[in-house]
Amino acid sequence: MIKEAIFHRPKNNYAYAYDKDTLHIQLQTKKGDMDSVELVFGDPYDWVNEKWQMKSKEMLKSGSTDSHDFWFIEVKPEFHRMRYGFRCSDSKETFYYTEGGIFPSAPSEIHNYFCFPYLNNIDVFNAPNWVKDTVWYQIFPERFGNGDKNFNPEGALPWASADPSPTNFFGGDFQGVIDHLDYLEDLGINGVYFTPIFKAYSNHKYDTIDYMEIDPQFGDKDTFRTLVKECHKRGIRVMLDAVFNHSGYYFPPFQDVLNEKEHSKYKDWFHLRGFPIVQEPIPNYDTFGFVGSMPKLNTENPEVKKYLLNVARYWIEEFDIDGWRLDVANEVDHAFWREFRKVVKDAKHDAYILGEIWHDSMPWLQGDQFDAVMNYPFTNGAIDFFAKQVISTDQFANTISKVLHMYPANVNEVAFNLLDSHDTPRILTLSHNDKRRVELLYLFQLSFVGTPCIYYGDEIGMAGGQDPGCRACMVWEPENQDLKLFHFVQKLIKLRKTVPSFGNKGTFKFLQANNIDNTIVYEKKTENERLIFVLNNSDKKKWVSLQELSNKTCQELLTEQTITFEKDAVVNLEAYGYKCYKL
Amino acid sequence: MIKEAIFHRPKNNYAYAYDKDTLHIQLQTKKGDMDSVELVFGDPYDWVNEKWQMKSKEMLKSGSTDSHDFWFIEVKPEFHRMRYGFRCSDSKETFYYTEGGIFPSAPSEIHNYFCFPYLNNIDVFNAPNWVKDTVWYQIFPERFGNGDKNFNPEGALPWASADPSPTNFFGGDFQGVIDHLDYLEDLGINGVYFTPIFKAYSNHKYDTIDYMEIDPQFGDKDTFRTLVKECHKRGIRVMLDAVFNHSGYYFPPFQDVLNEKEHSKYKDWFHLRGFPIVQEPIPNYDTFGFVGSMPKLNTENPEVKKYLLNVARYWIEEFDIDGWRLDVANEVDHAFWREFRKVVKDAKHDAYILGEIWHDSMPWLQGDQFDAVMNYPFTNGAIDFFAKQVISTDQFANTISKVLHMYPANVNEVAFNLLDSHDTPRILTLSHNDKRRVELLYLFQLSFVGTPCIYYGDEIGMAGGQDPGCRACMVWEPENQDLKLFHFVQKLIKLRKTVPSFGNKGTFKFLQANNIDNTIVYEKKTENERLIFVLNNSDKKKWVSLQELSNKTCQELLTEQTITFEKDAVVNLEAYGYKCYKL
Repeated sequence: MIKEAIFHRPKNNYAYAYDKDTLHIQLQTKKGDMDSVELVFGDPYDWVNEKWQMKSKEMLKSGSTDSHDFWFIEVKPEFHRMRYGFRCSDSKETFYYTEGGIFPSAPSEIHNYFCFPYLNNIDVFNAPNWVKDTVWYQIFPERFGNGDKNFNPEGALPWASADPSPTNFFGGDFQGVIDHLDYLEDLGINGVYFTPIFKAYSNHKYDTIDYMEIDPQFGDKDTFRTLVKECHKRGIRVMLDAVFNHSGYYFPPFQDVLNEKEHSKYKDWFHLRGFPIVQEPIPNYDTFGFVGSMPKLNTENPEVKKYLLNVARYWIEEFDIDGWRLDVANEVDHAFWREFRKVVKDAKHDAYILGEIWHDSMPWLQGDQFDAVMNYPFTNGAIDFFAKQVISTDQFANTISKVLHMYPANVNEVAFNLLDSHDTPRILTLSHNDKRRVELLYLFQLSFVGTPCIYYGDEIGMAGGQDPGCRACMVWEPENQDLKLFHFVQKLIKLRKTVPSFGNKGTFKFLQANNIDNTIVYEKKTENERLIFVLNNSDKKKWVSLQELSNKTCQELLTEQTITFEKDAVVNLEAYGYKCYKL
Repeated sequence: MIKEAIFHRPKNNYAYAYDKDTLHIQLQTKKGDMDSVELVFGDPYDWVNEKWQMKSKEMLKSGSTDSHDFWFIEVKPEFHRMRYGFRCSDSKETFYYTEGGIFPSAPSEIHNYFCFPYLNNIDVFNAPNWVKDTVWYQIFPERFGNGDKNFNPEGALPWASADPSPTNFFGGDFQGVIDHLDYLEDLGINGVYFTPIFKAYSNHKYDTIDYMEIDPQFGDKDTFRTLVKECHKRGIRVMLDAVFNHSGYYFPPFQDVLNEKEHSKYKDWFHLRGFPIVQEPIPNYDTFGFVGSMPKLNTENPEVKKYLLNVARYWIEEFDIDGWRLDVANEVDHAFWREFRKVVKDAKHDAYILGEIWHDSMPWLQGDQFDAVMNYPFTNGAIDFFAKQVISTDQFANTISKVLHMYPANVNEVAFNLLDSHDTPRILTLSHNDKRRVELLYLFQLSFVGTPCIYYGDEIGMAGGQDPGCRACMVWEPENQDLKLFHFVQKLIKLRKTVPSFGNKGTFKFLQANNIDNTIVYEKKTENERLIFVLNNSDKKKWVSLQELSNKTCQELLTEQTITFEKDAVVNLEAYGYKCYKL
């Protein structure tokens, strides 16, 4: 065995509180190295005759990546505290892996063991409950619907009369969203994420001018209040985009700095490196990327903090929004986000805080900062496999398994699982315009752990490349909408809502990942229910043998047909076909 | 190579901000597996012709444990942000280790690379500067000096007239400390850590009755104010013990709960599991361990939080203390400690916050909670090697290397390195009464990275077993003090203060760890200075060959002799002998 490949360290995905009574413990070992792993554990203060009282319990192999196996166990320590180690075995050897190192037999000195000193309820990662049952819909407000031409910005083009460009406008507005809420309700989504709506210069509004004002092209505060109310009436939550990493060039404090230079009272609102302020060859102040029009805000400055935290509070208290999505969240300081969380949860105890982070986000997901991040590792895996078809079935299974094991289970349950966004090409385009691949993507996304998000228009078959291509006007003429795709997504959303194991109540596990056939089989399981998904990610018919279905009668959820399998249960799949059996 | 044994994950000891401009990056690999490791890195937004601009830089092997090598590099990214991976090589193979996995050549997609998104100054771990230059002295107030017999508790025994027991008293008090401050100044220490001084029932005072009052046996608030002032006059800082995990049985709110039961307004101040409150067979309320007289405080309750945070503020603001040592810190919630840090640093920006944690403490040392923990992993290594002589030279070097690599460098610089305490046997006793071993312990402790602490009386050769044995009355008759040992410790403290590389300015590295001879050689180095320590941890004379000293003339710091070495530089060491050469 390769002992050097064993890894465990609290507190993160390897050891965390799942709820106020429950610890989850995970061990990472070299793939295929161990036959079994047991947790050896006890209360740190449970001593009899100077001997520490230890129990042991078998751990479950919960999944694998290309390199590692993961072992899992759930424990409910009576007194909320635990010392522990791992008894690892293969056919030849047994040893103990502990914080103090590796021992041939259980070390007698308790200081060697790992410690979860006390399960304090307040430290439990605690995202809003409603998020687990939410299907999001992302709206880029300039391009969803033009409901009130009075608000059109100067030079706005007729709806969909041109390709989207970095600078053109089509007059999308709040009335346009309100007008189409029935459509969203019909689709079945119950959360809308709006990219920025505050006064800004560009069509994307990520270059804020005034965080306290609605951009006049979208309407006014009354229209926005109506929009939120109408959403809530339909059971739809509303999440706004907080662009707190940087302001826009025309944000008055930055303008003041440009004009007043070292005499500006706002000079500590930014990270300036000298005067006069220049933009060439690169800005002499910190920016988002090297974009001079997006000066980075100094979120360590108490005045800036006060201003932004007030913004965070204001839109919740005054307009009853349900969440904030945090733009470029990883570049803002952790100290700011800790205060942000307090302010937001004080204003609304079950508001959702979603960070835009594209990489491993464990440092932000410890319970003191975000409820979730945009799950791009999930996105990359799903897109590479189903859309681009550039990774093997094995690689896909390994990637998804890595995604599931890199964070605690309570974090995964509220992960924001997107397939595309205003920052990526659309899934249809990524799928080389093959709608069968898009269906597989949706089936996988909507049956996976987490909270899925649909990018506006994808559900009716809109195509579009990298920004600005992906930001086209929503298609509203039914004859130009792919209604078959719409109804498919609608059905998946309904299944997610009505079949407990389809959504977050079900635990996910791969059963097969067939590299030759390019087929995958996975299960979603609750105590009383088991779903088996069979997906053919190839352009040929395939047959999949499934012992799990042998001699079983079950319902195929997508066709609603009842099927009885023979002893040799074989599932026939069309090219890019799929089945979901309920046992 | 064993690729599965490679580990890296930000943000912790593997990737952290050392200061406002500097990142430290560490990679863990299987011992002896790699010939070289390079960091490949760049600014995430530095793209030319759609190609990410990457540099590479050789990493240094900074140390090893029994199982792993550690590779280290310091980087100062111009724009405070970095994406990176590792190019790993042995004689046969080169590959890239990244967040996205292992690749034969550098992956082109940036999302594969690890990310340190932005170095925000406020998130940098930031302990008080003075701590790095502090040598602590731990005082158990009941046993250090009886300066005012008027304060003697009832039944107090004459000083040192009996062995210490769990319940006896000798009348130690603040005047006794004040009377002996010249002694402490003479020794050279410049920080005193007092175990609890607040009103309590026991002799150890860990069972607080009133957090706002001095225990009457020690004096009153005026005596304490004088004590702090007198310490400060001598450049000695004062740290108190905050027992916030639990109160004492006679803490009025707990008494109220005992009396008023479910009607007590304090019933949410504790974790009660039912009424009536019982202590047998085990308490039906949460406690420290299973000690019924130490009911755990509910630090999630806003009233309790307010009360304790006020205590934290009061003793700083009113008495100008310099730090808090936090008893059983690991069992109190993280949320509480985050607020505690804010209150304490608001009251005194450079107060020191030291947590009592005996195990891996990374989750408390991220900059938002503690400045340091009591470094028991260091203690265990030093005691097992020098005092108990139960581990080999190799095992010692591996342990110390593990201690140095488990936390960021800025955390190590303020680690509280104790050899013993009121909770362990004394070092002389652990050393089987061999004072030569005690000298080696002190030499190692006082030349190591971190902030060392001397337990009262050890420096004059007091012995004592596990509590209560280690809590004897301080010996004040010169004829009963080991003055040779005292002067040795005094000299080491002086060297630590006067020779920059002796203390925290020097980086530590093992040069030799000879398992057969039981000798170790290590260096402490600054840019301009290099110290070489040669220690013989055996009861026989030993000869150590040191190429580093070949043909060199240097000063031996402990004897203050100048020595010129031959080409074959050989150091002669007595049994348990030691040398410290300054080059």
